[in-house]
Amino acid sequence: RINGDRLWDSLMEMAKIGPGVRGGNNRQTLTDEDGEGRRLFQSWCEKAGLAMGVDTMGNMFFTRAGTDPDALPVYVGSHLDTQPTGGKFDGVLGVLGGLELIRTLNDLNIQTKHPIVVVNWTNEEGTRFAPAMLASGVFAGIHEQDWAYDREDAKGKKFGDELDRIGWKGDESVGARKMHALFELHIEQGPILEAEGKDIGVVTHGQGLWWLQITLTGKESHTGSTPMPMRKNAGLGMARITELVHTIAMAHQPGAVGAIGHVDVYPNSRNVIPGRVVFTVDIRSPDLATLSAMKAEIEEKAPRIAKELGLEIAIEEAGHFDPVTFNEGCVTAVRNAAERLGYTHRNIVSGAGHDACWINRVAPTAMVMCPCVDGLSHNEDEDISKEWAAAGADVLLHAVLETAEI
Amino acid sequence: RINGDRLWDSLMEMAKIGPGVRGGNNRQTLTDEDGEGRRLFQSWCEKAGLAMGVDTMGNMFFTRAGTDPDALPVYVGSHLDTQPTGGKFDGVLGVLGGLELIRTLNDLNIQTKHPIVVVNWTNEEGTRFAPAMLASGVFAGIHEQDWAYDREDAKGKKFGDELDRIGWKGDESVGARKMHALFELHIEQGPILEAEGKDIGVVTHGQGLWWLQITLTGKESHTGSTPMPMRKNAGLGMARITELVHTIAMAHQPGAVGAIGHVDVYPNSRNVIPGRVVFTVDIRSPDLATLSAMKAEIEEKAPRIAKELGLEIAIEEAGHFDPVTFNEGCVTAVRNAAERLGYTHRNIVSGAGHDACWINRVAPTAMVMCPCVDGLSHNEDEDISKEWAAAGADVLLHAVLETAEI
Ligand SMILES: NC(=O)NCCC(=O)O
Ligand SMILES: NC(=O)NCCC(=O)O
Repeated sequence: RINGDRLWDSLMEMAKIGPGVRGGNNRQTLTDEDGEGRRLFQSWCEKAGLAMGVDTMGNMFFTRAGTDPDALPVYVGSHLDTQPTGGKFDGVLGVLGGLELIRTLNDLNIQTKHPIVVVNWTNEEGTRFAPAMLASGVFAGIHEQDWAYDREDAKGKKFGDELDRIGWKGDESVGARKMHALFELHIEQGPILEAEGKDIGVVTHGQGLWWLQITLTGKESHTGSTPMPMRKNAGLGMARITELVHTIAMAHQPGAVGAIGHVDVYPNSRNVIPGRVVFTVDIRSPDLATLSAMKAEIEEKAPRIAKELGLEIAIEEAGHFDPVTFNEGCVTAVRNAAERLGYTHRNIVSGAGHDACWINRVAPTAMVMCPCVDGLSHNEDEDISKEWAAAGADVLLHAVLETAEI
Repeated sequence: RINGDRLWDSLMEMAKIGPGVRGGNNRQTLTDEDGEGRRLFQSWCEKAGLAMGVDTMGNMFFTRAGTDPDALPVYVGSHLDTQPTGGKFDGVLGVLGGLELIRTLNDLNIQTKHPIVVVNWTNEEGTRFAPAMLASGVFAGIHEQDWAYDREDAKGKKFGDELDRIGWKGDESVGARKMHALFELHIEQGPILEAEGKDIGVVTHGQGLWWLQITLTGKESHTGSTPMPMRKNAGLGMARITELVHTIAMAHQPGAVGAIGHVDVYPNSRNVIPGRVVFTVDIRSPDLATLSAMKAEIEEKAPRIAKELGLEIAIEEAGHFDPVTFNEGCVTAVRNAAERLGYTHRNIVSGAGHDACWINRVAPTAMVMCPCVDGLSHNEDEDISKEWAAAGADVLLHAVLETAEI
């Protein structure tokens, strides 16, 4: 069993970097705080005797050698970056759970045949630079690195430049590493495990996603003196597309979700009719056909809404992944571990995207989930219990041990 | 007749300060650019032999003496501040039209019985600091000065501190001046005069306004893993209230308008359901009963929308003026001037709020309007012809001469 107190202490220590305003964290990717978090993680890993490698996307890899020089490593990890108003556990639990697993093996002096590598993937959240899971996506060959370097944040700063700036552009070629398997521990970010009183979610699938960035262009004009029939109100168009996305998601219950999280209104003045709005639609479903149908319906109806209001519309694809089916052998290893340790568990579909979803394309992969209070995530109030964290890390340890072989 | 070329040159010279990105202006109130615009205006006025007074709200008054020491001055002017993406004429024409009137009287060596004062009112636009027409409102006794000083911009900076910072807090007590009359020349900001081919709008009324700042509070959570029934989506609430405001305005055609120009979404991340939105509703009507009914309907229905979505709602009054009826004598002076000079004209209701609307509460007041291309304003493409500007300033001159007496 892992050391639950030590894991918790590390979680609380990391949470001091990039504190939020309400008890959570703002440690967005490639900020100074991200750099500081990385350095703390590095110091812990080196103290645990691990050797660091960093690739040109800033992904950090810490290796514990195995006994068989020819055996490929088993990877464990997640991400240390957070939402602007994020929690202390989303991603961080998977990285520090991986480190705790190593510390436990060191304590017990257990050697594995396969090396074990703890990884921190760059820019999982996708808030500052869309899309999410950017660096694991490059690792898995989904995106070109040059394209990733060119992603811009809201201030026009580029991913590549910011990675340089915080000093974490390594020299390893991205995706060169071959994996025996990868396991990611993560909080559920949804309400199911807590509601059913289960300790562990055995993640069999992940739902797919589309992010559509929509730009509506109307005509800025005076809110008082422009007659209603002459208006080209881009804000009204956004309101109608917001309702459309909601209606489409509701029509596919319970197998779909949809919302708009990011909105920019120009010029954003009380007495100016919005001349332009840019916003991102987020739609998801575990079923590919449903996801595609939802996207098609938006692409058909949003332009009609725009036309009725005299607006121009541009729809860009800003993020996408298909629904995922995780590797059967790895999923079984997770289920076996939960069984062996006596934790209650159930199969679960991940509602969120994860680095593991991309790595699943290039290596056998599975995920372990633990409950979170009220299913709340992407919120500073995100919370878990020490026992939930420990159970998750225990299952991670045993799934890895089964796979890395003693 | 005034000198149309000289007026136009001054308009173009002023437009160089705080240039916009598309040919218009961004010279928002109490910015460095506002300070620079004020200094240029001061230098022109002093060259024209006028004496400056500045009050504690930063309103600037330039006096040309009259022949009767007991006669109250006739005021002319408007505002030099602009929208963030504003035009070169909104407000500026009224101030520089006033200056051109003085220059013309100087050229022709005409003395008036009543002094003439050219005024630049602070913060007419209300974008940076709500409400609009803030300083003329304090002058007219509508707002307390201390309350005005405490207004905050989006960065939390206070009006009073920013007025100090740019060095334009004068020592004259606000509202101490007594006026014989006030005339404001302004572009129409709507399409009526151009469509009907009229040179001059004789402004008989101004429509009333309510600004309602609405805050919806839901719960930030993950767009992917939060089931639809568990969501408290403040962005969806805003969308529905946007549609409500539009529907209410459409129900009162043609005597009402309504829109939402200013929106802030928190935390504004693509994969976070908005936990809070703050936005400002702008509704207007020339008819007080209609305006009140619209406000009441929003105050009744918006909380219902919020409740259905599990959101908290707060509605604050952020700006207000009742519909205005301008002074009959002053309005007649404007109409007489247009007749005398042979300009085509019609009576018109101002769709926008103006400093003249507040001053009308404390002194006989009227407005002169000239057309603008496509009725477009609060847009960098706002445009007028040199002839339109000259006609407006000519009418201003003659209305003032009739009132200030030669
Ligand atoms: N786990 C997680 O929150 N990932 C961010 C990408 C997503 O929005 O699903
Ligand atoms: N004239 C003008 O645009 N004034 C600003 C206040 C308003 O929104 O009406």
